[in-house]
Amino acid sequence: MNRDVPLKKYAKKMNHSYTFGAFPTIELLKNQPEHVLKVLLHPDMNSETQLEIITDLCNRHNIPIERAAKVVEKLRDKENIFAVGVFEKYTNQLDPTADHIVLVNPSDMGNMGTIIRTSIGFGIENLAIIEPGVDVFNPKVVRASMGSLFQLNFCYFPSFEAYKEQAGNRSLYPFMLKGAVPLQELQRDTTETYSLIFGNEATGLPDSFADEGQSVVIRHTDHIDSLNLALATGIGIYEFTK
Amino acid sequence: MNRDVPLKKYAKKMNHSYTFGAFPTIELLKNQPEHVLKVLLHPDMNSETQLEIITDLCNRHNIPIERAAKVVEKLRDKENIFAVGVFEKYTNQLDPTADHIVLVNPSDMGNMGTIIRTSIGFGIENLAIIEPGVDVFNPKVVRASMGSLFQLNFCYFPSFEAYKEQAGNRSLYPFMLKGAVPLQELQRDTTETYSLIFGNEATGLPDSFADEGQSVVIRHTDHIDSLNLALATGIGIYEFTK
Repeated sequence: MNRDVPLKKYAKKMNHSYTFGAFPTIELLKNQPEHVLKVLLHPDMNSETQLEIITDLCNRHNIPIERAAKVVEKLRDKENIFAVGVFEKYTNQLDPTADHIVLVNPSDMGNMGTIIRTSIGFGIENLAIIEPGVDVFNPKVVRASMGSLFQLNFCYFPSFEAYKEQAGNRSLYPFMLKGAVPLQELQRDTTETYSLIFGNEATGLPDSFADEGQSVVIRHTDHIDSLNLALATGIGIYEFTK
Repeated sequence: MNRDVPLKKYAKKMNHSYTFGAFPTIELLKNQPEHVLKVLLHPDMNSETQLEIITDLCNRHNIPIERAAKVVEKLRDKENIFAVGVFEKYTNQLDPTADHIVLVNPSDMGNMGTIIRTSIGFGIENLAIIEPGVDVFNPKVVRASMGSLFQLNFCYFPSFEAYKEQAGNRSLYPFMLKGAVPLQELQRDTTETYSLIFGNEATGLPDSFADEGQSVVIRHTDHIDSLNLALATGIGIYEFTK
């Protein structure tokens, strides 16, 4: 494991990324310690509790801690960031026996992070992303997820067909404005394994998804065009895990 | 009506604000035409349909349209903005017979806009904000609301007590991590008028709210600390309007 990676501003092509702030750094250390290269601390960090947790986790896993005021100041995008985790990117696989969220061409990093946080919050820990889609390792996604990204199994697929080949036996629920059944009235077998499928922020799912399993619409007034993607996903997850 | 306000970057103390982009500008013109001072258009605007709708609405309400490339470039915060609505701020009152959302000390503009959009989407059109709280007229809130702000009755109150004095007879549902009943199991009289109450992003509602009506918790796993505020609010609204 080469821990001496160049500490430049994040770019998608890099093989490592960063957590900004003590909270997501602790989540990283707790859930993916084997992928942490080092932790950088700024001398202005003033939370003794957080410092203690970080030091403790790093010691336990032999992860170096460096005092690095200038590097932290160069990397961070907000002035109140005093801890930065440096980690190598990793891949993992979906559990074919678990429920999944499928995002088709998601484009907003804040939405992606919020969706991950909500999904983990309601116990759905597997996320498929149909390409092209947001880079989950972008520090903006990590932040919006509040570090819950590190509890997630996620996998990118070149197409929905490719996803289905590996997804295992399950019910499919594409969420679309033209969905056949309102979520508010949906009846289903609550013992089934399912995938909840959501489209891009601007365009939604292509019409062809109406033929994939049971299409669903979250009924709302005609006073808005559509719900925000993170909201729609959150409401879907809430209802299915109730 | 003085239409010649100084066209400076938005600041809270100003008596006017802006919509950035054709979509929220059309929502402004449709819903609050009496408060629109003017519309500024950039010559690079290339959507004929949107141009036609804007021109039509402005003509109908005698609202001036100005070609103003430099001013639009100065005001806008994204390069793809070609239409700017300039409007005077207004106040309105809550409907005491309708359901309300109450946000206690909300601090994030994106969340505020998303909450407004979701609320309008599910037919709750009255929002109380307990001060201090985000400025709803900030263009970032307007954008996150996708212009649905202009369909909303909203009112600021110095305290929750002040809100209750004017809110009319209703059931109160504070949402808090220590809530007595999970939303997933809540039984209630669906003919009642209600207020759904949510706290600040970082701190939630003060414990004292447990004594205000029926406190509710959105049950989630202990893998996350809490849900994002806009998500929690959206899930609450979805469940109550189902």
